Amino acid sequence: MKFTCMQNNFLEVILTVQKAVSARSSTPILEGILIETEKDVLKLVGTNLELGIQSYMEANIIQEGSVVLPSRLLSEVIRKLPDAEIEVTVSDNNAVKIACLNSNVTLQGFPADEYPSLPEISENQPIEISKMLLSNMIRETVFAVAVDEARPILTGALLEVEEKNVTMVCLDGYRLALRRGMLEVPHEDLRVIIPGKSLVEVGKILDDDDQTISITVSDRHVLFDLGLTRIISRVLEGEYINYKQIIPEDYKTRVKVDTKILSSSIDRASLIAREGKNNLIKLSLQDQKMVITSNSETGQVYEEVPLLLEGKDLEIAFNARYFMDMLKVIEDQEMCLDFTTGISPCVVRPIKGSNFTYLLLPVRIFA
Amino acid sequence: MKFTCMQNNFLEVILTVQKAVSARSSTPILEGILIETEKDVLKLVGTNLELGIQSYMEANIIQEGSVVLPSRLLSEVIRKLPDAEIEVTVSDNNAVKIACLNSNVTLQGFPADEYPSLPEISENQPIEISKMLLSNMIRETVFAVAVDEARPILTGALLEVEEKNVTMVCLDGYRLALRRGMLEVPHEDLRVIIPGKSLVEVGKILDDDDQTISITVSDRHVLFDLGLTRIISRVLEGEYINYKQIIPEDYKTRVKVDTKILSSSIDRASLIAREGKNNLIKLSLQDQKMVITSNSETGQVYEEVPLLLEGKDLEIAFNARYFMDMLKVIEDQEMCLDFTTGISPCVVRPIKGSNFTYLLLPVRIFA
Repeated sequence: MKFTCMQNNFLEVILTVQKAVSARSSTPILEGILIETEKDVLKLVGTNLELGIQSYMEANIIQEGSVVLPSRLLSEVIRKLPDAEIEVTVSDNNAVKIACLNSNVTLQGFPADEYPSLPEISENQPIEISKMLLSNMIRETVFAVAVDEARPILTGALLEVEEKNVTMVCLDGYRLALRRGMLEVPHEDLRVIIPGKSLVEVGKILDDDDQTISITVSDRHVLFDLGLTRIISRVLEGEYINYKQIIPEDYKTRVKVDTKILSSSIDRASLIAREGKNNLIKLSLQDQKMVITSNSETGQVYEEVPLLLEGKDLEIAFNARYFMDMLKVIEDQEMCLDFTTGISPCVVRPIKGSNFTYLLLPVRIFA
Repeated sequence: MKFTCMQNNFLEVILTVQKAVSARSSTPILEGILIETEKDVLKLVGTNLELGIQSYMEANIIQEGSVVLPSRLLSEVIRKLPDAEIEVTVSDNNAVKIACLNSNVTLQGFPADEYPSLPEISENQPIEISKMLLSNMIRETVFAVAVDEARPILTGALLEVEEKNVTMVCLDGYRLALRRGMLEVPHEDLRVIIPGKSLVEVGKILDDDDQTISITVSDRHVLFDLGLTRIISRVLEGEYINYKQIIPEDYKTRVKVDTKILSSSIDRASLIAREGKNNLIKLSLQDQKMVITSNSETGQVYEEVPLLLEGKDLEIAFNARYFMDMLKVIEDQEMCLDFTTGISPCVVRPIKGSNFTYLLLPVRIFA
């Protein structure tokens, strides 16, 4: 194989497909990326067997072929080369010579035929969705997937399509994050559970523009087709939790509050809470304000947040980190918090519309 | 004690004196900073017993007094408060209430009389030096102090004054870094060895402006007086190495080379060198160019750097990291490298003048 291309183009595509490559793998070839010619373009592939990313780039193909190169080392070498034309030549023993102006770097590669191939997915009736909507849906929910593997299904996010309505739901037993959006083109109903780790990488690759990408779901995989880049993830098999049943519709206490003011108060209360055992913040709702307190050996915080309170006074406590995780992704200037009792979940919604729903379980305290 | 001050002023001074405070100390009070009133201003002090920083700030003193507060926690709390007036009140048991708008944070403090006091140094005949010169001298030499304590004297930098000439020298047995400067006002001759760790923190506090600060040297301490901030460091006792004897004046091979071009070539060669055992780069000088090579299991680098060569051809090898450490701080567009043999030190100087001298020991290779 032999080709020439521009340093900055090559680097960009390497960094894209590298997002699917494990930094450490017991199988060294899985720390590599596959580079192969396909007619007159270059195809790069990275995979960790759960997630695969392939990307095409323009190159001047002089001789066809393929090779696998260690991903981290390759990206560092290309990053440190000048922004000029690079010539890549693969010899018979998979040694790859990378020449650029007065530099010659030779990296030892692996044979391409030992690299796992990505599953073939035929793009039949894909879901069309704007990059920006998908990016926001991921960012605003994926923090709530379960980290431990006790219930593997909860390490994934549920993507649900009903006509024009698209919903992403993540929950880990302590909290739930739900984001709704609208498709331009209706699609037949479907539900698929995508690993949270895969979605994090998908989110990094999506630019924040309004172009449309397509999502195709097969029995065992989901394909995100961004044009030159295709991302394929394994899906999680099994039934997701009936999340609609979990979200209470009634409330006894409703609060409207400024997101930034609440967020900076809870952020300060967290500083002291995290020094304690349970990372606990207490909320007391009465007299049109929320009093937030936290205690530990190192000190106390007492914060007053003005708000609109409707219904009964209430005392309730939460894990500070779970509350902050949620507040960090809410972009609305104001939001609405619904409570029933001090031991039942808090439901967070926008003031207008129904773009998002968050649910937080309180921590029982014996005061 | 009770005072009010502005959040941003308070934070700035906390972050300054915190540079002398250890993140972890077996004596908890040493993780704190001392806050005390001094007439109508506030004085903050941080120290790790080797280095001490004290800084004055304007405040509205309502009641005199003093307290010690945990430094990291305090700086995080103040950072997260709004940019508004802060009221600080210390109660009898050293609990400190920090109030700002609707926030009340209480931190448990320590009694001020248990905090170590900084040594008194009378500013008799100080050295006057521009902040920018001192900052450059530190940055361009301090990376070469010894890290291990086998020869404690080498963990310090030698500061030498002779009339108007000021010199800073660091060396660790493998390399030497020397930076010269000129004082505006001559000073009597002196030599003092300042711990490298202290100088790193001094360097962080110096802004890059052309104001003058004063340095006072006593038997056991050195004082950097920046006006509102005073930095006091222990000095290292003992004789420094006679560094002038180490630097060869003769050469058999002299090279003039572009700093950036050499630097980016050696940077690339380092990528492969660091994968090997000895982090080794080989330099071959002939035909008005330098060929730089490195080898490891993962690959090879071959770089050609054009240069002006005077004298004999030469082959020599270096530790890649030591070479890069030096190249990172040289700001001259071109520089001069002098060699004698493949097993004697390389001396690096500016093309014009004598602002800096670096010396690098080669690594013996059996080729």
